[in-house]
Amino acid sequence: MKARKAASELEDISEAECWELLGGHKMGRIAIVVDGKPQIFPVNYGLKGKVIVFRTAAGTKLAYAPDSPVAFEIDDYDGAAGEGWSVMVQGLGRDVTEAADDFAWSARGARGVRPAAPGEKLHWIAVDPTVISGRRFRADDRTGSPPS
Amino acid sequence: MKARKAASELEDISEAECWELLGGHKMGRIAIVVDGKPQIFPVNYGLKGKVIVFRTAAGTKLAYAPDSPVAFEIDDYDGAAGEGWSVMVQGLGRDVTEAADDFAWSARGARGVRPAAPGEKLHWIAVDPTVISGRRFRADDRTGSPPS
Repeated sequence: MKARKAASELEDISEAECWELLGGHKMGRIAIVVDGKPQIFPVNYGLKGKVIVFRTAAGTKLAYAPDSPVAFEIDDYDGAAGEGWSVMVQGLGRDVTEAADDFAWSARGARGVRPAAPGEKLHWIAVDPTVISGRRFRADDRTGSPPS
Repeated sequence: MKARKAASELEDISEAECWELLGGHKMGRIAIVVDGKPQIFPVNYGLKGKVIVFRTAAGTKLAYAPDSPVAFEIDDYDGAAGEGWSVMVQGLGRDVTEAADDFAWSARGARGVRPAAPGEKLHWIAVDPTVISGRRFRADDRTGSPPS
């Protein structure tokens, strides 16, 4: 077991490890901006190289993610240890459902994102990453919050 | 154990249950908008009535959450069952660290948000809610994603 760390300890996660963590998880959250206001939705996702791909039906995500700045986040938190980590990818949302360009073709090959059954009209959204960052944090009773 | 549900099943969570879920958890995520781009950060939070409160050091959250639209989200996902839920609160961020108005006084009484140790210069941010919504979803191999 890890020794307890100082309350304010905050450790950056390397880009390589951020991608490893993204590759090892299936559920994350996408943030989009609707009329200047952020919204957050959980999504099942897959990775193709360094592109995050998820599927969605018609709705807010499909209406506001494509061709817009988005953020994608995964995290984990061990309440007993008071330790956690998070990875955030900022990038551009792209509708790759039918586009014939190389990016879209590639994104549709993402592992873990199964083809839609016929008639379900599901759409594929990719996050084309521009910035990735990750942090391990410790949130105990004294700090009350992971440092920003 | 719950019977497996249809792939597309999606169930709204009542406002009352959303607040119950928020009251029963400690870790969530705040989304803010920075130069038109969303960002997501995990935070430990507490509740005071229907106000979400978290603490932060100087940084992005402190710079961009106050007096701005924010979203706060909690979720849980059982990978084995393929079932999960999420609650999202949209509202206005408010810096309640020192403000003397009733809202700030009340927010500083949030349970689970401990006082900062002297000299740590931590700030208290509250989310004044305008919209709350929650959903239970099923994300199996066929749909690949919780419906939006």
